[in-house]
Amino acid sequence: MLVVKKFGGTSVADKERIFNVARRIEKSYKAGDDVVVVLSAMGKMTDVLIDQAKDINPNPSKRELDMLLVTGEQTSVALMSMALSVLGVPSISLNAFQVAMHTTSSYGNARLKRIDSERIRHELDQKKVVVITGFQGVNKYDDFTTLGRGGSDTTAVALAASLHADKCEIYTDVEGVYTADPRVVKKARKMKEITYDEMLDLASLGAGVLHNRSVEMAKKYNVQLVVRSSLNEEEGTIVKEKVKVERMLVSGVAADKNVTRISVIGLEDRPGVAFRVFDLLAKANINVDMILQSIGREGRKDISFTVTEDMADEALELLENSKERLDYQKLDHRTNVAKVSVVGAGMMSNPGVAARMFECMYNSNININMISTSEIRVTVLIDEKDTEKAMNAAHDAFGLED
Amino acid sequence: MLVVKKFGGTSVADKERIFNVARRIEKSYKAGDDVVVVLSAMGKMTDVLIDQAKDINPNPSKRELDMLLVTGEQTSVALMSMALSVLGVPSISLNAFQVAMHTTSSYGNARLKRIDSERIRHELDQKKVVVITGFQGVNKYDDFTTLGRGGSDTTAVALAASLHADKCEIYTDVEGVYTADPRVVKKARKMKEITYDEMLDLASLGAGVLHNRSVEMAKKYNVQLVVRSSLNEEEGTIVKEKVKVERMLVSGVAADKNVTRISVIGLEDRPGVAFRVFDLLAKANINVDMILQSIGREGRKDISFTVTEDMADEALELLENSKERLDYQKLDHRTNVAKVSVVGAGMMSNPGVAARMFECMYNSNININMISTSEIRVTVLIDEKDTEKAMNAAHDAFGLED
Repeated sequence: MLVVKKFGGTSVADKERIFNVARRIEKSYKAGDDVVVVLSAMGKMTDVLIDQAKDINPNPSKRELDMLLVTGEQTSVALMSMALSVLGVPSISLNAFQVAMHTTSSYGNARLKRIDSERIRHELDQKKVVVITGFQGVNKYDDFTTLGRGGSDTTAVALAASLHADKCEIYTDVEGVYTADPRVVKKARKMKEITYDEMLDLASLGAGVLHNRSVEMAKKYNVQLVVRSSLNEEEGTIVKEKVKVERMLVSGVAADKNVTRISVIGLEDRPGVAFRVFDLLAKANINVDMILQSIGREGRKDISFTVTEDMADEALELLENSKERLDYQKLDHRTNVAKVSVVGAGMMSNPGVAARMFECMYNSNININMISTSEIRVTVLIDEKDTEKAMNAAHDAFGLED
Repeated sequence: MLVVKKFGGTSVADKERIFNVARRIEKSYKAGDDVVVVLSAMGKMTDVLIDQAKDINPNPSKRELDMLLVTGEQTSVALMSMALSVLGVPSISLNAFQVAMHTTSSYGNARLKRIDSERIRHELDQKKVVVITGFQGVNKYDDFTTLGRGGSDTTAVALAASLHADKCEIYTDVEGVYTADPRVVKKARKMKEITYDEMLDLASLGAGVLHNRSVEMAKKYNVQLVVRSSLNEEEGTIVKEKVKVERMLVSGVAADKNVTRISVIGLEDRPGVAFRVFDLLAKANINVDMILQSIGREGRKDISFTVTEDMADEALELLENSKERLDYQKLDHRTNVAKVSVVGAGMMSNPGVAARMFECMYNSNININMISTSEIRVTVLIDEKDTEKAMNAAHDAFGLED
């Protein structure tokens, strides 16, 4: 079996943890697997390198910052290969150049385009564990790039796809994907299986176990993902295209507090108004999430939407500066709000989910600000202070603890 | 003017020093030069990385150790490029892959074979300072190698040769090449010029300003080397093929305490005996320096030679194990000895140098153990305790202070 195993920075933060991971790899290798390992930089090393750069130049070129940052993963893979050697496991470390991990040119946030798997195949054929730097690539200029947040997950999935691996295991500090954040919902339960689409909705809604891009890629290339703990042998959660049919309506509850609601009040009620508002934001690369448009009244209407908190100031400033052109009466925004969502492939064929969600919010005396739904998700925007209450209420209402 | 400037680890050890170097580069760049910079890893970073590796694996694979070590120079070049950017100097950092710095395969001690200067030319054409990792290369497997001690000097000279640079400046913490170590010989004087051959003899004799391999390469490709201080604007010492004719007999005095003398006593006095002794050592990669063979007496003779101290145990063990085959009576060795040499291209045409050297040792009451000479060098092996006295005596005898 060919398996790609990805370990994050905490899993390789020090000597002891490096050997924990090495023993884990050893087990799989000695069981006869072909093993490809993807590693992040050790512990907080990426942050340390960023600080070092900013101390020299508060606004370093992204190209040079990537040149610096990639030393982090290279350090991890070299040390891991040395640790494997202590355990008698033959291995070789490779960086993005050696793997020919081709990406787009955009430094700091590049996208993977193509991997030449020849070198990896060659090393696997010689019965070596291949230890590869996550998070990084090279662009057409032969310059180093990094993939942005969650990049190592994406590296692992891309390698699994390119090598037609039997599975791609993502090791984290939790045991898998839960029906809700176990720190908030005491009754939260680890899921055995979840679909790519559910995982995508959970990730984008702040469950945060896997990065969206890696799940999208896994879905596209049908890579079987497993999310499991690096600290114990529990089986984890399998992410795949279809899960067994006798499943529940809703598979999980997620919350996201990193939200600001912005309202543009008293817009002229005529065609093209919404387009002008969102076109303005899109051109500034501001991602808009939930959108609510009021019904027109006296020739005027309101548009509300949510953005992530770090984008709020820029969005407000843009709208402020375009007040005349957009022709609205006033701007309003609120930061102390949160999105709470229920997600489940099962709800596609069941129209009662949204109603049950609203009912349980009502029963818990939680006021709903905005509503947004997709085929497999119902999201409500509520006051931030009600987040934990809302999550538990939804978890109970959909019987997720069983 | 195209100039290659090499700065060692101490010169880029911290933020302040990085900016010192950056300002130095800025000056040259703003004066209109095309500038290629070669950097070592910051301060003690290479040692720190080696310790980190040995903590994981006391005997790490050389391939993986090189994979780890090369992150050191990559960190330096990225930070230097960021610092140059603060000063408004456009620059780009490149590692061994990007420069295509091809070496032999031997990890930890690779030799440069070929540099593709295309990328560097391209960046220079865009008026960028090109900041390149010293000490490292890539072999035919696309794996990182390191060049061993003094490797960054060699990188700089190789780049200067490949780019047909007008000069190659090696910045160090001394102001140039001296007639003797100024810490030992108070009257030591900085030389304006010195020939490659003199520099080679001085380097191999423990003066240690430049690594031998870099000087050999400079001689081979006729690269004009300048050794100068990174701390001030002094002119330094120029190393080139020929220096002005009205020069002195002797240009410098060097000493080397890293010496052990080994004597093989009572060898059978017949042809092939010396060959068998030195062939044995050569096959174990033990470099032998001074050699003295006594005149045979009663069918037996003695052979004495020197090796560096770290090689002494291995050499003695080898000889011990071959006692029967070599047929000698006993082994003897001394560690507290030192080589003191006078070096000078001028002595080629002047046979009196050796005599004057022996005379000044005699006048200082220093006993000579062994003697070895080349066309431009006279070396005596003496008791280690006499080293400083011998250096000063020779410096005086050859009038080097003027």
